[in-house]
Amino acid sequence: MSRWFRLVMFVTGASSLFGSLYVWHATNQQAQVLMRAQQMRDHLYRTLREEQNRPLAPGADLSDSNLPMIYAITPTYNRPEQIAELTRLSQTLMHVPALHWIICEDATTASEPLQRFLLNLKLPYTFLFAPMPSKYRDDKKMVYKPKGVAARNAGMRWIRDNNKTGVFYFMDDDNSYDLRLFREMRYTQRVSMWPVGLVTGLALSTPVLKDGHLVGWYDGFIYGRKFPVDMAGFAVNVDYWRAAGEVEMPFKTSYEEDGFLRAIGISFSELEFKANDCTEIYVWHTRTSKAPKAKRTIFEPAFDDSNIRILQNSMLIEPLTEANANKNYSSEVSKMMTLKTS
Amino acid sequence: MSRWFRLVMFVTGASSLFGSLYVWHATNQQAQVLMRAQQMRDHLYRTLREEQNRPLAPGADLSDSNLPMIYAITPTYNRPEQIAELTRLSQTLMHVPALHWIICEDATTASEPLQRFLLNLKLPYTFLFAPMPSKYRDDKKMVYKPKGVAARNAGMRWIRDNNKTGVFYFMDDDNSYDLRLFREMRYTQRVSMWPVGLVTGLALSTPVLKDGHLVGWYDGFIYGRKFPVDMAGFAVNVDYWRAAGEVEMPFKTSYEEDGFLRAIGISFSELEFKANDCTEIYVWHTRTSKAPKAKRTIFEPAFDDSNIRILQNSMLIEPLTEANANKNYSSEVSKMMTLKTS
Repeated sequence: MSRWFRLVMFVTGASSLFGSLYVWHATNQQAQVLMRAQQMRDHLYRTLREEQNRPLAPGADLSDSNLPMIYAITPTYNRPEQIAELTRLSQTLMHVPALHWIICEDATTASEPLQRFLLNLKLPYTFLFAPMPSKYRDDKKMVYKPKGVAARNAGMRWIRDNNKTGVFYFMDDDNSYDLRLFREMRYTQRVSMWPVGLVTGLALSTPVLKDGHLVGWYDGFIYGRKFPVDMAGFAVNVDYWRAAGEVEMPFKTSYEEDGFLRAIGISFSELEFKANDCTEIYVWHTRTSKAPKAKRTIFEPAFDDSNIRILQNSMLIEPLTEANANKNYSSEVSKMMTLKTS
Repeated sequence: MSRWFRLVMFVTGASSLFGSLYVWHATNQQAQVLMRAQQMRDHLYRTLREEQNRPLAPGADLSDSNLPMIYAITPTYNRPEQIAELTRLSQTLMHVPALHWIICEDATTASEPLQRFLLNLKLPYTFLFAPMPSKYRDDKKMVYKPKGVAARNAGMRWIRDNNKTGVFYFMDDDNSYDLRLFREMRYTQRVSMWPVGLVTGLALSTPVLKDGHLVGWYDGFIYGRKFPVDMAGFAVNVDYWRAAGEVEMPFKTSYEEDGFLRAIGISFSELEFKANDCTEIYVWHTRTSKAPKAKRTIFEPAFDDSNIRILQNSMLIEPLTEANANKNYSSEVSKMMTLKTS
């Protein structure tokens, strides 16, 4: 906690301001953070961003760059491995010049670890709250939810509302990306496409090309899709998207990419194939195993006045209540070994 | 494949040279690669490394640096997600100045994708072959194998044989690392330690400190260990390790860290605690889900003369044989959709 900040959060709701104001003091005040929330159409849409005096990583310095911008739109949500994933992905993005990261959280509040991550982030970024609409979230019969759709649409709306140009790309927080991908997607004129590794039972999803021409699709889930591609397999030019009516992604599980690409009106012959005519794999759909839920040993009084009390803010995912404290207290005490000698 | 190289590989065995020489031509020759292999004591130990004219990433430039070196020792093995993991980890390491990456593969040959990864790698690195000794590999009764032990020992031997100084750290290829960790471990005098997130059922492994002093350990697997720590939770000073007898890691599953730290002779009071007195999590034991094995649809003749034939080198993990080609051929043909119109 050596680097800390004064945090100023303005929270706005609906179309009017209601002023919940927090001022957070800490040592080495380095930045101010402005947190705003606006209701956009049918779901929430909020922004948390830092002031201009936050230092950027060298690769993120745009000052001498005339490159077209890349807008990376990353849906994320609160889970034990969230900060690890975002930390790792941020290190990839720090190598990409002229990139703006739009992080969209499926929530209406940010955890303290997430706030700290954002405050330390040395990249140009925008943070948006974009929760799944309640009609999908609360539908008990719906087994496969349209995850990340609200997030991706919020990211595109931010691009529209801020009159940006360049290219946008949907980047999941657990994928792996070869840096060559960004150099190639940056010059997308309409919609560019490339292979994605480790996705579906075939371990590969790609357009099939012969002599540079599309002849088919290779993907583990073709059924009924005109564009059987993974979310990580294409990028879109902002101006082209705008001219096509600024279409959104449909809330239709497994058909998000296909619905979006159909709606944007791109034809097969207009697609731009990257990654050396789709012969290289520059992005992999890696998936991180779910971390176990932390047990409640941490309530043991032996940990009072120790570092464990501070660390628990970074690791707990269940609310701290007396009920679950008592539940596991006695059975897990043995996990803490106290030194007999030091 | 726009960046290619001339590859020169020397393979040496036992204590004498036997010259298997390969020369590999390609466009845009940019570097030479020297691949050497030496048998070290009881198991193989080989090196693949590039010549000096390989361009490095900006963060890897050591020219104006007087920093103590960090030797990152990474065990790895051939699996579908290997290149994705190494690509992602390399992006983390590219941000760390004065770091040398020692990649140790549990194999005696490198796959073509791995060779291509190494040839494109813009970091100072050494590649070693360090297979698990056959007495463990071939023991059918042994359920939990001592994975990565040969690799870590090979890495340490390379440091010894090349008379290096600085600090070494065991970095698994699927963990996630906050860059602040490297700034702190660099000045390790003997052995430094810090918390590791997302490990064991407690989701945390850490020394327990009160007022800066060690009072116990918090870890999901304490049993019998003097040092119940994760492999990612400590770094070692090279000179201290050397003075302590250049000890190796034992082939004792689950007790590798403990056995090593006991053998090095460090006392509790000599440990150096990092990450703000063990109150921050700078490394997470993230684990990547196993990718499905690729099915054999890829043998369909419709893919002849297409990009699929090139991509299969990057995705297949089973040997290409007529037997497995025929096995899945007919059932998976539908996964390829041929365009009716383009």
